[in-house]
Amino acid sequence: MAADVAVSGRVDTAEAVRVTSGFGIDHLTRDVVAVPAPGPDEVLVRLKAVSLNYRDLLVINGLYNPDLSRPLVVASDAAGEVVAVGPAVTAFKPGDRVTAAFFQGWPSGRFERRFFDSTLGGGLDGVLATARVFPQQGLVPLPAHLSYEEGAALPCAALTAWHALVPTAHVKSGDNVLLIGTGGVSIFALQFAKMHGARVIILSSSDAKLSRAKSLGADEGINYRNTPEWDREVLALTGGTGADIVVEVGGAGTFARSLAAVRPQGQVSVIGGLSGVIEPLNIVPILQGLVRVQGINVGPIEMFRQMIHAISINRLKPVIDRVFELGQYREALRYLESGQHFGKVVVTLG
Amino acid sequence: MAADVAVSGRVDTAEAVRVTSGFGIDHLTRDVVAVPAPGPDEVLVRLKAVSLNYRDLLVINGLYNPDLSRPLVVASDAAGEVVAVGPAVTAFKPGDRVTAAFFQGWPSGRFERRFFDSTLGGGLDGVLATARVFPQQGLVPLPAHLSYEEGAALPCAALTAWHALVPTAHVKSGDNVLLIGTGGVSIFALQFAKMHGARVIILSSSDAKLSRAKSLGADEGINYRNTPEWDREVLALTGGTGADIVVEVGGAGTFARSLAAVRPQGQVSVIGGLSGVIEPLNIVPILQGLVRVQGINVGPIEMFRQMIHAISINRLKPVIDRVFELGQYREALRYLESGQHFGKVVVTLG
Amino acid sequence: MAADVAVSGRVDTAEAVRVTSGFGIDHLTRDVVAVPAPGPDEVLVRLKAVSLNYRDLLVINGLYNPDLSRPLVVASDAAGEVVAVGPAVTAFKPGDRVTAAFFQGWPSGRFERRFFDSTLGGGLDGVLATARVFPQQGLVPLPAHLSYEEGAALPCAALTAWHALVPTAHVKSGDNVLLIGTGGVSIFALQFAKMHGARVIILSSSDAKLSRAKSLGADEGINYRNTPEWDREVLALTGGTGADIVVEVGGAGTFARSLAAVRPQGQVSVIGGLSGVIEPLNIVPILQGLVRVQGINVGPIEMFRQMIHAISINRLKPVIDRVFELGQYREALRYLESGQHFGKVVVTLG
Amino acid sequence: MAADVAVSGRVDTAEAVRVTSGFGIDHLTRDVVAVPAPGPDEVLVRLKAVSLNYRDLLVINGLYNPDLSRPLVVASDAAGEVVAVGPAVTAFKPGDRVTAAFFQGWPSGRFERRFFDSTLGGGLDGVLATARVFPQQGLVPLPAHLSYEEGAALPCAALTAWHALVPTAHVKSGDNVLLIGTGGVSIFALQFAKMHGARVIILSSSDAKLSRAKSLGADEGINYRNTPEWDREVLALTGGTGADIVVEVGGAGTFARSLAAVRPQGQVSVIGGLSGVIEPLNIVPILQGLVRVQGINVGPIEMFRQMIHAISINRLKPVIDRVFELGQYREALRYLESGQHFGKVVVTLG
Repeated sequence: MAADVAVSGRVDTAEAVRVTSGFGIDHLTRDVVAVPAPGPDEVLVRLKAVSLNYRDLLVINGLYNPDLSRPLVVASDAAGEVVAVGPAVTAFKPGDRVTAAFFQGWPSGRFERRFFDSTLGGGLDGVLATARVFPQQGLVPLPAHLSYEEGAALPCAALTAWHALVPTAHVKSGDNVLLIGTGGVSIFALQFAKMHGARVIILSSSDAKLSRAKSLGADEGINYRNTPEWDREVLALTGGTGADIVVEVGGAGTFARSLAAVRPQGQVSVIGGLSGVIEPLNIVPILQGLVRVQGINVGPIEMFRQMIHAISINRLKPVIDRVFELGQYREALRYLESGQHFGKVVVTLG
Repeated sequence: MAADVAVSGRVDTAEAVRVTSGFGIDHLTRDVVAVPAPGPDEVLVRLKAVSLNYRDLLVINGLYNPDLSRPLVVASDAAGEVVAVGPAVTAFKPGDRVTAAFFQGWPSGRFERRFFDSTLGGGLDGVLATARVFPQQGLVPLPAHLSYEEGAALPCAALTAWHALVPTAHVKSGDNVLLIGTGGVSIFALQFAKMHGARVIILSSSDAKLSRAKSLGADEGINYRNTPEWDREVLALTGGTGADIVVEVGGAGTFARSLAAVRPQGQVSVIGGLSGVIEPLNIVPILQGLVRVQGINVGPIEMFRQMIHAISINRLKPVIDRVFELGQYREALRYLESGQHFGKVVVTLG
Repeated sequence: MAADVAVSGRVDTAEAVRVTSGFGIDHLTRDVVAVPAPGPDEVLVRLKAVSLNYRDLLVINGLYNPDLSRPLVVASDAAGEVVAVGPAVTAFKPGDRVTAAFFQGWPSGRFERRFFDSTLGGGLDGVLATARVFPQQGLVPLPAHLSYEEGAALPCAALTAWHALVPTAHVKSGDNVLLIGTGGVSIFALQFAKMHGARVIILSSSDAKLSRAKSLGADEGINYRNTPEWDREVLALTGGTGADIVVEVGGAGTFARSLAAVRPQGQVSVIGGLSGVIEPLNIVPILQGLVRVQGINVGPIEMFRQMIHAISINRLKPVIDRVFELGQYREALRYLESGQHFGKVVVTLG
Repeated sequence: MAADVAVSGRVDTAEAVRVTSGFGIDHLTRDVVAVPAPGPDEVLVRLKAVSLNYRDLLVINGLYNPDLSRPLVVASDAAGEVVAVGPAVTAFKPGDRVTAAFFQGWPSGRFERRFFDSTLGGGLDGVLATARVFPQQGLVPLPAHLSYEEGAALPCAALTAWHALVPTAHVKSGDNVLLIGTGGVSIFALQFAKMHGARVIILSSSDAKLSRAKSLGADEGINYRNTPEWDREVLALTGGTGADIVVEVGGAGTFARSLAAVRPQGQVSVIGGLSGVIEPLNIVPILQGLVRVQGINVGPIEMFRQMIHAISINRLKPVIDRVFELGQYREALRYLESGQHFGKVVVTLG
């Protein structure tokens, strides 16, 4: 019981899924780990749900950082309930429902490379665990209208989509926004674009997924299997001008078409979803179209708070594709790897 | 019949409401004026509806520009149907439904003071007339979902609200937007703010108007008769932080409270609605709060096109308070002057 | 000796000038105060020089904050030498030359009102003292080309000028920058504007000060005693367009002329120098000119670092008007109060 | 004599260098062409000097636009003296010294692809001719401190450099600006960066050119022959952070290093100098560093005017590498093609 936990205020151990000696989903281990008491400025959280990202697969498969500190608890996105707080904590109390920022050490302002050392499930132990201690600055209250599963969907994918559209591209009503695919980032981008009155054109290889995207508000869907020259279709759908903003998830072979499909002086927001694809780039379309290619990498805590405020005001519900039990964590990761999902893949921690 | 007009392509005279010798609503004259044939780059439009603005009252009462060229056809906002086009016109053809930009001579880029000479119903003859010739660059197609009355509502009030929120303040989802009153600019600002996912707090002296604003999506209403210290209420409604953006229509006595109600680093967009009010200003709140006070004066044609595109994509319907016949133009102006309206006051030209 | 201090690493007491019971320069007290050992994340600094600001006079005269915590060490701007550091300090070591940020608690990102509690010589004890402990995040290394007196000139006046011109107004080469007066902020603004290739027009009541400003690079000087309608002169000097940026230090009666002297869509940066002047404001020029009035209040630590980097790269030398001994602190404050100075007034701590 | 020309006001024919049937420098023809009388809004200019750009070589060699309208007068950058003006021209009179904008049809605002039809020496006849008629909106007065040769250097290369640094990247004092090479765009970028107080790091394969760049104000030079891993050197010179802005002229193989040498959230401005290079691009550094890659393509007329104002205020002198006579136009083009130049290559028209 939540009330009981708040009273007892102690969690000594947690179950955690970790990369230990070997890489690969099969070599992940499920271990009992010690949970320290929270320091003066720290908060102990009983984690209730975790969502998975492509980045977790890169980490697990050893493609993210060859010098990864191990053992490492995997995953970056979670929501849970505060169990205990250190004496200097003013923002939280036991029983509070919270989620955690991806970059625990990037409060606001300029990005610095050392902030990579503060990412959950990368530089720091992650959240696929039944409990974890966080510094209070790294936590944000969960909006009342969201379940733990929905809250766990936010930290990485939602903030990436928000960063790609709102603070860098200033998405506004009437903008044409082109989305590549229907994974977690793209579906949040769809929801945020519609929240700002934009017109959404979305690509998928599946008519069923396009249909589902339209039920979420997408204005136009293009099946790129049937329409391999989808850049021309985007131009046709925008009166020959092109999309104002493209959210480019970095899949092989789409970048050149994204440059052909964006309007002059438009923005292509480049997201890291897949592994480090190297592709031939013709930079002439960038300069001829005065295009801005903007790299996006999640975002700072201040931006996370603003996004969650927007989600709260608009009672936006993240799209959860499927929820797995903790015991099914390998199935959950393989399901994500298969690319069948539409929206977020979640693991519940009970 | 529209088709017939398109064929005949001629309008030799129009009825027009003008400021001639004296100022004041009573001294307006309704005259038959000659309509020239369109020049090479010009378009002849049969006007179908006109909306009124406070500025029209200033012009009519001699408060806008003491050196006003007279006789002057009044009003700036209209929609109508193209009757004939000059030989160099490529963007329009007879039968097209159009509206006209407030600043006929400000295409885009930096504002220059000389552009005041190109405003309809100010520097140039206005639109309270059954026909008028425009340069093609000053016209924009009317979205298909709008009637002439709705289209006539757009040029001045809607673009002012758009300029106050979108290109200068980058309104975004989750922002708290404070609106002072329920006139034409404020109601468009309400609609645009909601189109971008913002939270709207609106002030009125009438509970009925607040109720109507809420039916249009306003999140919070404050009756400033009952709550004269409404700035405190805005702070209370925003967790003590204040509004991100205030659209300040410049009424006497509200500016100081607007400065108290805006958040640090927020924006107060100052709109010209009423006459040139001089009020005592304490500038300390501006600097202590790092506030931006941004003057707004309608906007350029490029911005007008973008706004109309957004209206079209979102099928937004302007709020028309009341429609008068041309013969009732004095009643229409007096109704506007009374401040009873909610949204726009329109004159139909049949 | 500096080396000796670094070795000994201890300062138990300091002399400090404080507001204690009564307000006013005459009631300031010079006391011996205990200096604590630095905590884990703190740095003990032997202060070598302090510069004074108008704000110090407001504090001393009880006009800044009626609920000022007392006794309070006065002044916000200092430079000194590190004597000892706490065990978690990585950025500084004994012997380092440093200056301190005005807002010790505003690292970057959005301003919040609570940051006023972290200002030196306001919310926190100030720096007119021979030693003080600072959190390491609040200190910045002093560029090698600056003396302690020059370094002490930077925190408040220089950052205010930088904030008014660079991050908010994006001053660029060719801009016309109008400066009101020749105090500390205005002279830094002159130097920063010239560093960016702008053209500077400066106002003063003294031909001698105008002449000195020109020797620092000012392009045009206007003696407002001889030219009370100086806004017209600014228009004449800018081809009728007006200044791109005005740095308005908030003196009585200048604001209306600043609005008349700024170009359409230009920026008036409003600085708090004098006490809370209430003046009648005609807001019509703001909206007709689409002017931005931007409140400025020093700035965050990240911005302070960037400014100091710029000063270092350009080997910019602050303009010190006069240096007083600690024993002359009352004379120094009265000299500042008299308005005779040109640039900064400094107290050396030996 | 200028006065005589102004009086006579007639030029019936001009000598012009054109691409006619075949491509290549050898197939250029020097022809006598008819010069029309200026239309109502047009200006007849006797051209005095022309500067050459890489783009001219692309045009001449048939690599710019396969559907180039021929015969086409080549080159885009010129300065000259007004000979006669049409009756509606208000901004110019005979005897005025002028230069012409690259995009004759892009006054301000958003870029549109159709503006390519209005480029001199591309969509329209160019300026390697002794006289030409221009619309008045496409001309800008030449600053008094510039010769015709210096004025001819500005339209394409200078505005490209300005656009890359000022309006898109807001270059500011203290910024580290990395320049690739010492051609026309790079040397203007060097001058503009220094005009804004930035620190310039410049690359060349020649120590002599690096030395000359330093005499113009460059702070650091890297010979990429000796230092092929120049990205590491840039990091070393910037304390490990990287350059704030890179002006990338698009040479083969430099782009990946530019991405490695730019700081997180910095900007790489991509310029079109060489032919349409396709290179393998690893987009991971873009997203990991939150880098902005901004395409640059000269700029609008309003920006050209602002740049020329800045040049005038700062009395900046373009760097002319070498001046050829009209009869030596082939030698001039071959000299440009050889890449030996430092700054601009000019043809004087006597």
